[in-house]
Amino acid sequence: MENNLYFELKPSLLKYKGELFNAICEEKKNIGYYSLPFGDIKPLIDFEKGFGDNIECIAVIGIGGSSLGAKAVYNFLKPVKEFKRKLYFFETTDPLNIAELENRIDLKKAHFLIVSKSGSTLETIALFKYFLNKCDKEQFSFITELDSPLAKLAETMDAKIFEIPKNVGGRFSVLSSVGLIPLILAGIDIEALLNGAKKVHNSFFNDGYLKDTLLKKALFFAKNHQEYNINLLFAYSESFKYFVQWYIQLWGESLGKKQKDSIFNVGVTPVGLIGPQDQHSFLQLIVEGTRNKTVTFMKIKNFKQNLKVPDISLDFLQKLDIINGIAFDELINKQSDSIKEALLLQDDIPIDEIIIDEVNEEAIGKLIFYYELLTSLMGILIDVNTYNQPGVELGKSILKEKLIGRNG
Amino acid sequence: MENNLYFELKPSLLKYKGELFNAICEEKKNIGYYSLPFGDIKPLIDFEKGFGDNIECIAVIGIGGSSLGAKAVYNFLKPVKEFKRKLYFFETTDPLNIAELENRIDLKKAHFLIVSKSGSTLETIALFKYFLNKCDKEQFSFITELDSPLAKLAETMDAKIFEIPKNVGGRFSVLSSVGLIPLILAGIDIEALLNGAKKVHNSFFNDGYLKDTLLKKALFFAKNHQEYNINLLFAYSESFKYFVQWYIQLWGESLGKKQKDSIFNVGVTPVGLIGPQDQHSFLQLIVEGTRNKTVTFMKIKNFKQNLKVPDISLDFLQKLDIINGIAFDELINKQSDSIKEALLLQDDIPIDEIIIDEVNEEAIGKLIFYYELLTSLMGILIDVNTYNQPGVELGKSILKEKLIGRNG
Repeated sequence: MENNLYFELKPSLLKYKGELFNAICEEKKNIGYYSLPFGDIKPLIDFEKGFGDNIECIAVIGIGGSSLGAKAVYNFLKPVKEFKRKLYFFETTDPLNIAELENRIDLKKAHFLIVSKSGSTLETIALFKYFLNKCDKEQFSFITELDSPLAKLAETMDAKIFEIPKNVGGRFSVLSSVGLIPLILAGIDIEALLNGAKKVHNSFFNDGYLKDTLLKKALFFAKNHQEYNINLLFAYSESFKYFVQWYIQLWGESLGKKQKDSIFNVGVTPVGLIGPQDQHSFLQLIVEGTRNKTVTFMKIKNFKQNLKVPDISLDFLQKLDIINGIAFDELINKQSDSIKEALLLQDDIPIDEIIIDEVNEEAIGKLIFYYELLTSLMGILIDVNTYNQPGVELGKSILKEKLIGRNG
Repeated sequence: MENNLYFELKPSLLKYKGELFNAICEEKKNIGYYSLPFGDIKPLIDFEKGFGDNIECIAVIGIGGSSLGAKAVYNFLKPVKEFKRKLYFFETTDPLNIAELENRIDLKKAHFLIVSKSGSTLETIALFKYFLNKCDKEQFSFITELDSPLAKLAETMDAKIFEIPKNVGGRFSVLSSVGLIPLILAGIDIEALLNGAKKVHNSFFNDGYLKDTLLKKALFFAKNHQEYNINLLFAYSESFKYFVQWYIQLWGESLGKKQKDSIFNVGVTPVGLIGPQDQHSFLQLIVEGTRNKTVTFMKIKNFKQNLKVPDISLDFLQKLDIINGIAFDELINKQSDSIKEALLLQDDIPIDEIIIDEVNEEAIGKLIFYYELLTSLMGILIDVNTYNQPGVELGKSILKEKLIGRNG
């Protein structure tokens, strides 16, 4: 992957690169996600081998960090891959969505993965009860912390349990069993996925190409995070549709915090855009709207899908004959380049660009680890605890009171 | 529909309500969308009647305002409706997406709607050529301005042409033939859709309930648009997934502008969230992040889908027995209420709430017109031309140069 930065950093900022790198190396000792690319996948491979052909679909029951990562990888690969089993993500209490998804699967041929780090996520347990009521105990496996209530329950059911390590946060867990189990059951090459992540890990920590780039990008984004308090990830392919959702959780939930050593609320709002569609939706706001946005373009070098615009000249539309014979992949990348160049002419919109080689497991593994590292670097610089989410507790406790009130 | 505002307006601001109402009444004389709910749908009904049973799917070829509206309505109704024909939206030059969608339809049983206001949208013409090369001329109908190059071409093909009126902008066109033609072909009750819009129109312009509410909301949002420069639409149901995309274009492209009478770039960034999923993703950023966001909650009073959490008590998880027996629709609405109450305790996050009765045509018609009116009011107050999009031209002309360079 390439990452081109189109903004300048002053020497007064650049001098902090070494300090920042030392800080992340220090943090790495205690935070679990950094070592996930090097995990042992043998038990996961064995688990998949134990599945018969009678299981045709996998229902992932989880929400937030327990679903967004697997969903991002699965949907990224969907246009290029024949899956061994389909994945369905149950991640809402919306009864219309539950009924619609349920209609699409044959419950007898389904296996359920109940995914919850704490083991007591309300939405997940509600959906688990719903399907437990309709299916056999043998159809459930569990992905959770080993001492969670859910793990204890799973033991009484003699069900398979996969661990989420304590020091791996939900939104950083896609390369743990949380993401890997559903993905391997779908027939996705999780070794290649982890290899991609490893390459980014090594490039960053072993003085490779990404070290300098990531440090610079984080320093620039963090230094300017109050002026440019929105980051747009403008990804040119429908394949990125759920990847941007994963990025939104990672970035928003990690960086939207009270600062550790002050009283201030900080954070950068993540927005996901898909090109070229959002050229016809959001672009106007970028070009002429308030100058509070950085833009990260993302494109695919080789789509490996050789569709072309036919060489047809249409009456009254001859002006558009300039697209005749062009391959759609060349066209979409020229569109991305054109918007990037147009924005660069504005001089007050900071731009960078990520280019991945093609749509495969290794590429998305790289992107995942790239964004995790960037998030960690940002968290250090804007002085927040990147890995907690205390802000969500109040809503939960209000809901509990409402539910208790209803029964009492 | 209800719209509850949880913020206070000072008398110094409220006194502008009359002036603002007069301004929108003045604007109404020249802008076409205001009268769309009262359009004659007889020709559309006749067009649909002419379709045989052999047409099983409708491929809508359009981008931005030419697809987002129909897509929003279609997907909103999907969980509750048996469609007469399926709609497929071709709205990208991404070859992976084109190939994937094409695989899902039987080209012989498809009819194509080519939708482009200007009649020369590059992506749309590229896709039109692609399918013209594979299908019969008779399989195409056109929705465009009557004097556009595309209309002229359609005439030479003896194809059916539906008009997009000159004074109706793309992002305000869902209640014109742009939205209505694909929707009626899918078997959606467009009369009920327009009726919903009419009710909101009349409530606003004939001194009904929404007049005061919309004026107040616009005054508050506009007065504070620099401090609160992001609006989150937090919609509690997957059914709203594409509605929020439609809202993002409407809001972003209409309000992200240079001001008419000054040099300043203004605009409010629209962000779409889906609950409860985004409680586990974006909520942390709302609660503890930078105070630059207003939040609009949206919920459905009656889901008419009576799924319940079974009355099962799980070992080690007895604490969660409080959800036993609850209907999922009650649960999701309690979740929405809990988050709203938690945010109200913060005292510096402006909140409002929209409640629709149920998932049907009339409800989404109301929402559409509500948001169009709100956008127009905002545009007047922040002094922008709500209906143009000059910022997108530069990227287009750079692309044209690249394409000409390639051939020359």
